Amino acid sequence: MHPSLLQDAGCPKEIPHNEKLLSLKYESLDYDNSENQLFLEEERRMSFLGFKCLEISRWVICGLIGFLTGLIACCIDIAVENLAGVKYFVVKQNIEKFTEVGGLSISLILWAVLNAAFVMVGAIIVAFFEPGAAGSGIPQIKCYLNGVKIPRVVRLKTLVVKVCGVICSVAGGLAVGKEGPMIHSGAVVAAGVSQGRSTSLKKDFKIFEYFRRDTEKRDFVSAGAAAGVSAAFGAPVGGVLFSLEEGASFWNQMLTWRIFFASMISTFTLNFFLSIYNKKPGDLSSPGLINFGRFESDVSGLLGALFNILNYWLTIFRIRYVHRPCLQVMEAMLVGAVTATVSFAMIYFSNDCQPLGPDQSEDYPLQLFCADGEYNSMATAFFNTPERSVRSLFHNPPGSYNPLTLSLFTLTYFFLACWTYGLTVSAGVFIPSLLIGAAWGRLFGILLASITPDGSVSVGGYMTSLWGYMTSLWGGIVRMTLSLTVIMVEATGNVTYGLPIMLVLLTAKIVGDYFVEGLYDIHIKLQSVPFLHLEAPATSHWLTAREVMSAPVTCFNRIEKVGTIVDVLSNTSTNHNGFPVVVPVAASDDMGKVCGLILRSQLIVLLKHKVFVELARSRLTQRKLQLKDFRDAYPRFPPIQSIHVSQDERECMMDLTEFMNPTPYTVPQETSLPRVFKLFRALGLRHLVVVDSENRVVGLVTRKDLARYHLGKHGLEEMQLAQT
Amino acid sequence: MHPSLLQDAGCPKEIPHNEKLLSLKYESLDYDNSENQLFLEEERRMSFLGFKCLEISRWVICGLIGFLTGLIACCIDIAVENLAGVKYFVVKQNIEKFTEVGGLSISLILWAVLNAAFVMVGAIIVAFFEPGAAGSGIPQIKCYLNGVKIPRVVRLKTLVVKVCGVICSVAGGLAVGKEGPMIHSGAVVAAGVSQGRSTSLKKDFKIFEYFRRDTEKRDFVSAGAAAGVSAAFGAPVGGVLFSLEEGASFWNQMLTWRIFFASMISTFTLNFFLSIYNKKPGDLSSPGLINFGRFESDVSGLLGALFNILNYWLTIFRIRYVHRPCLQVMEAMLVGAVTATVSFAMIYFSNDCQPLGPDQSEDYPLQLFCADGEYNSMATAFFNTPERSVRSLFHNPPGSYNPLTLSLFTLTYFFLACWTYGLTVSAGVFIPSLLIGAAWGRLFGILLASITPDGSVSVGGYMTSLWGYMTSLWGGIVRMTLSLTVIMVEATGNVTYGLPIMLVLLTAKIVGDYFVEGLYDIHIKLQSVPFLHLEAPATSHWLTAREVMSAPVTCFNRIEKVGTIVDVLSNTSTNHNGFPVVVPVAASDDMGKVCGLILRSQLIVLLKHKVFVELARSRLTQRKLQLKDFRDAYPRFPPIQSIHVSQDERECMMDLTEFMNPTPYTVPQETSLPRVFKLFRALGLRHLVVVDSENRVVGLVTRKDLARYHLGKHGLEEMQLAQT
Repeated sequence: MHPSLLQDAGCPKEIPHNEKLLSLKYESLDYDNSENQLFLEEERRMSFLGFKCLEISRWVICGLIGFLTGLIACCIDIAVENLAGVKYFVVKQNIEKFTEVGGLSISLILWAVLNAAFVMVGAIIVAFFEPGAAGSGIPQIKCYLNGVKIPRVVRLKTLVVKVCGVICSVAGGLAVGKEGPMIHSGAVVAAGVSQGRSTSLKKDFKIFEYFRRDTEKRDFVSAGAAAGVSAAFGAPVGGVLFSLEEGASFWNQMLTWRIFFASMISTFTLNFFLSIYNKKPGDLSSPGLINFGRFESDVSGLLGALFNILNYWLTIFRIRYVHRPCLQVMEAMLVGAVTATVSFAMIYFSNDCQPLGPDQSEDYPLQLFCADGEYNSMATAFFNTPERSVRSLFHNPPGSYNPLTLSLFTLTYFFLACWTYGLTVSAGVFIPSLLIGAAWGRLFGILLASITPDGSVSVGGYMTSLWGYMTSLWGGIVRMTLSLTVIMVEATGNVTYGLPIMLVLLTAKIVGDYFVEGLYDIHIKLQSVPFLHLEAPATSHWLTAREVMSAPVTCFNRIEKVGTIVDVLSNTSTNHNGFPVVVPVAASDDMGKVCGLILRSQLIVLLKHKVFVELARSRLTQRKLQLKDFRDAYPRFPPIQSIHVSQDERECMMDLTEFMNPTPYTVPQETSLPRVFKLFRALGLRHLVVVDSENRVVGLVTRKDLARYHLGKHGLEEMQLAQT
Repeated sequence: MHPSLLQDAGCPKEIPHNEKLLSLKYESLDYDNSENQLFLEEERRMSFLGFKCLEISRWVICGLIGFLTGLIACCIDIAVENLAGVKYFVVKQNIEKFTEVGGLSISLILWAVLNAAFVMVGAIIVAFFEPGAAGSGIPQIKCYLNGVKIPRVVRLKTLVVKVCGVICSVAGGLAVGKEGPMIHSGAVVAAGVSQGRSTSLKKDFKIFEYFRRDTEKRDFVSAGAAAGVSAAFGAPVGGVLFSLEEGASFWNQMLTWRIFFASMISTFTLNFFLSIYNKKPGDLSSPGLINFGRFESDVSGLLGALFNILNYWLTIFRIRYVHRPCLQVMEAMLVGAVTATVSFAMIYFSNDCQPLGPDQSEDYPLQLFCADGEYNSMATAFFNTPERSVRSLFHNPPGSYNPLTLSLFTLTYFFLACWTYGLTVSAGVFIPSLLIGAAWGRLFGILLASITPDGSVSVGGYMTSLWGYMTSLWGGIVRMTLSLTVIMVEATGNVTYGLPIMLVLLTAKIVGDYFVEGLYDIHIKLQSVPFLHLEAPATSHWLTAREVMSAPVTCFNRIEKVGTIVDVLSNTSTNHNGFPVVVPVAASDDMGKVCGLILRSQLIVLLKHKVFVELARSRLTQRKLQLKDFRDAYPRFPPIQSIHVSQDERECMMDLTEFMNPTPYTVPQETSLPRVFKLFRALGLRHLVVVDSENRVVGLVTRKDLARYHLGKHGLEEMQLAQT
C-alpha cells in the first residue's frame, strides 16, 4: 500500500508493481499454536485458577489498550487543533493586512510555505525514519489481521512517526484525515502492551509472557484496531465490527451482506404493510430513499471507482519513479504547496459572499473582498482543517453556499484527495471522501430544489441525502461493509439513517466492484501481499492439493545432524519457514512418514542455545530448554547468519521431538483447493502438510500457494511469484 | 429446551432432565460439504457464469426470506392487536357496567375465562399438533445454528402452529412477548424458501436444488433468524449480529467482549481528556452512568440469575411431572386464569388514581373506583398487552405511578413471567423482562428522587436509568452480547445510550454468570443437547483424541457387500451416521487405511436406488446415480427399515468410491482435545476420523464426544450419555 514499504533494502532493482505478482518477502503469522511437548506440559501444569488469571490479565490488557489508544487520539486531536489554529491565525492576519493594501501574493506564498514546511517535516520522518508509517495504515492492519506479517508494522517507532506524521500532514493542510492513523496507532499500542515489553526500548517488564506468540498477539491487535476506530469515530460497536470483519477467520462477508439484505427487506416489508394497515401508506421512516439508493449511489459508486482507478495509476507511477525518499519528500511538499495555492485561488476568485450571522460557527471566517459583516463562503470549505470543513458543510443553513462554489470545490478536492492518498505521509482517506461527498450532496440538494416545482426539498430528505452522499462516496472508495454502517450511525448519533446508509453502501459497492476493487485492496494488491480472501475462487474445484502445493519439501528427521539443519536454514534460495519432521520408512528411499512440524524460529532458538545431543554421552547433560526461551526470542528471532556453529558442533545431533508440533494438520493430495483453502483460512494456518495414503510427506501448502489463484475476467488466473 | 420436545415418541420412560446428561437423539448438521466425485464433477462442469447465477439466486432467496418474514410479523402484529382489542373492549364494558351495580366478580370470571380460552387454543395446538413450536424458539435456533439438528424445528407445520400459538398466548394475556417466535418464524421461512419446495405440502418447485444440503441451508437459516430479529425489533444490524454471534463458527464471544471493552475504554478516555482540555470536565455524554453501571446492574444481574434459577427448578418439575399434553394444556390455562385474577386483584385493590389528561395514550383506561376524569394507574400496567404496558411505563410523564403500584407490579410480574416461560405455548421472554425492568427502573427513579436533596433527578439521567434497567434485566436473563446492545440501540432509535447499555449488560452478565447460566443455555442443557461452545474447556489439554474418540469404528471397504451394509445400518444399538471407508492392509487383520468417509444418508439413497455392482456382469448395467437423487431425498432420508433388500441383492456388492468423501479431515491420535475441538468447530464437522501414524482408522470423533466435556466447579467434568 505504501510505495515506501518497498524501500526496505535500499532500492531493489525489480520492484513488483503488478497486481499479477505475489511477493515472497511477506511471511505469515502463525494463528495455529505449535502444540509441542513444552507447550502441552505447561498447559497441563496450569491449574484452573491459572487460566482464570490469564483471562483476567486479558481484560486488563484490553483496558490498557483502550486507555492508551484514547490518550493518543486525544494528543493528536489537541496537537492538530493548536498547530492548525496557529497557522490559520497567522495566514488570516496576513490576508487581512494585504487585502487592503494589495499584494495578496505574499499571503499566498506565506500560506504555501507554511503548508509545505509542515508537510516536509511529516514526510521526512516518514520517508527517512519509518516508511512503514506512511498512509492510513488500514491496509497494513487488514493484512496483519489476515495473517500476513508486514515488516515493522506494529513497532513503537512506527507509532511515534505515525502520530507525529499525521499531526504534520493535517496541520499542513493536506486533503487528509487523521482517522486511519488512529486505527493503526491502536493496533501498535495493542501489540506493544500485550507483550509486556518493548524490544525497541529494550525494556522487559516480565509480565504477560504467556501472550508472546502470534495467536494471542493477533487477538490483541484486533482489539487495538477496534479501540482505534472507537477513538477516531466515537463508535465502539463499529470498532468491534471492523475488527471482526477484518480479523475473524470465519467471517463470511458475502454471507453477512446477504443476511443484512434479508434483515432490511424484513423490516421494510413489516413497516410497509403496517403503514397500509394503519391507513397511512407511505409513512415509512424515509420514503424517498429507495429512489435515492437506486440512482445517486450508482453515481457514487462510479465516482469511487474513478477515484480508485486514478489512484491506482498514480500509485503505479509512484512505485516506478518516485521511490527515493528525497523525491517522496519533495512530492509531498509539492502537494502541500499546490493544495494551498489551489485553495487560495479558489477563495480569491470566488465571489460568494454570505452574511456573517450571530450563530456563525466558522473558526476563521475570511472577509477578503466581501462587504463588512460578510464572509467568503469558499473559505469555509478551503481555509480550514478538512474535519471542520465537513462540519461547516453539514451544519451551515441551506443557502450558505452557491452551486458554483460547491461544484468547483467538489471537483478540486476530488483530485487533490486522489493525489494526496499514497503520498509518503501519515494520513487517512476517510475525512476527505466524506468532505467531497458532503459538498456534492449539498450541490445536488440545491439542484434538486431548483428542479422541483415548489422549489423546495424537505429538510429531512435533504439531510438524509447529505448523509447518503457522504457515506456513499466513502463506501464507493473503501467498500467496507457492515462496520461502515455502524460507524456512520454511531458517529452521527442518529440511527434513523442506518437503513438508507446501508442501502446506499450496498449499491455503491455493487456498482464500484463492477469496475475496480476497493482502494485498500488495490494497494494491498499493488504491494503483492499474499492476502487470503474468505473463500477460494469459485471455479477452483479443478485444482487439488497436489497441483497447489510446493514440492519437494525439505524435511528433517526426528534426530537430525546440526550441520544439515544449519545448511538448510542458511540456504537463502529456499528460505523456508516450516519443515515437516519425518520418521524414515524402512527399506525405502522415499519420503518418510510425517510425525511433526518444526518452524525456522524454533530451530534458530535451539541452535542459539546449542541444544545438541552429544551422541556419546548421556542425554542428561543437555540443557533443558523452556518455553520461556522461545518467548523471550519472540518475535524478532535472530537470523541464522548471526548464530555461530563450530565445525565440531556441526557433527552433533539435535533431538527435535520435544519442540516440534507433533500433530500438524495434514490433507491427502487429492483434496480440492476450496477444501484446502477452507482449512487453511478457518484455522489461520501457516503450513499445511500434504501427505499420501501412507502418511508420507509429498508437499507443503503455504499462504503464497493459495493466494496465487484468483478470479480474473477470464476465469481462474495464477499469479507469478516475485522475489522482492 | 421444551419439555414437549421430549414427547417425540409418546412418553419415554427415562426422561433426561439432568444437565449432566447428553442426549443421543440429536444428530449433527453437516456444515462440511461431502466433496465426493459427483459433487466435484458438478462443480467442475459449472461455468463461471453458473457460479454468478448461484450467487444471484442466493440474493433472491434472501430477499424472499426478508419479505415473507416481514409479512408474517405483520400478520402477528395485526392479529394480536385485534384480538386483544376485542378482549379488552369486552372486559372493559363489563367492568364499567358492574362497577356501578356491584358484582365485579363476574367481570373477573369473564376476564379469566376469556384468557384461559385463548391460552387453551394456543396450548392445544402446541401440545397436540407440534410440540416443537413451544417456547420462544430461540434456544432451538441457537442449537440449529450451532450445528445440532433439532427434530422438526424448521418445518412448515411448526411455523403455522408457532404463529397461531403466539397470537393466542399474547391475546390470552400471558406475560409473554411475540419477539422470540418471530425469530423462529424467520428461520423456518428461510429453511423452506431456500429449498425451493415443501416436503410437508409435497410441492417441489424444481428450483434452488443446489441449495439442498446442510451447509447452504444453515447459511439461509441464519439469514432467516436475522430477518426475524429485524422484524421483531426493527433492528437490521442487530439481526445480523444475532445471527453471526450464534451462527458463525469462528465468532469468539469472549474475544468480542474484550474487543468491545477496549473500544469503550478508548472512547471514554478520549472524551474524558478532551473534556478536561476544553475546560468542561464532566461534560461526558452521560456522566452518572459509571456509577449506575456499578451498582444497579449488579442487582439486575442478581435478579436475572434468580429468574433463571427459579425457572430452572420449574422446568425440572415440568419435565418430571407435567409431560402429558393434557396436563400441559391445563397448566397453561391455569396460568392464563391466574394472570387475569392477579391482574384483576391488583387493579381492584389499587387506589392509585391519575387524572386522565388530554395527551392520554392509554388504549383502555379503566376508571373503576376513581373519580370522573381519572383512571386507575395500575390498570395501565396490567390491563393491556405487555408491549403496550412497556410503552406506557416508558412514555407516561413522571408521577403517573406511585411507588406502591410499581413495586407490587414488579414483584407480581416477575413471578408470573417466570412461571410462564416454559409453558407449552408459543411465547417469548423479551417483552416481559423489559416490562419488569421498566417498572423497576421507574420505581428506583422515584426512590432516588425522594432521597436526593432537591427532590428531583434530571430527565436525562432518569431516562437513561430506565433504559439501563430494562436492558440489564434482559441481559441478566439471556446473557446475550453485542447483538443485544445493537438491538436495543436500534429499537430505541437512540444511539446515545449505546455505551451505558453495553456497560450495564457487561456487568449484568458477569454478575449473573457467577451464579447461573443464561436462560437459553439452561434450557439447552436441560434438554441434554450436545451444544458445542466456542472453545474446549481451558483445562482439557490433558485429553487427547485417543481418549475422546469413539472406538472401535464400523468401517466399510471401498467395494462392500450389500448385506453387510444393510446389517450395519439396521443395527439400532449403534445407530452410527458416518462410516470411514478403508483400503484393507495386506497381510494384516488390522484396521485398513482410511480412504474416505460415507454417510448413512448417502448409503440409504444408494440402497434405495439399488446401485449394486453385479460382480459377474459388466459395470455398465449400473444405473448412474446423480447428485440430484441425493438432493431429492434431502433432508428426510427414509429409515433403513423402509428399504427392502432381497436375499439375492444382499449378496451383491456396492462400489462406494464415487459417493464417499475421498478427503475426510483426519487427526493423529495424539492430538490434544482443544486442537480437535478447534478443527471440529471451525469447520463445522460432523465426523472427524482419528488415524494412527500408518493412516489406519483407530477412532471417530463426533459432536457428542466433544460436548461431553465441560468445566464444572471442580475442574473438568464428563457428562454421561443418555439414550433418549
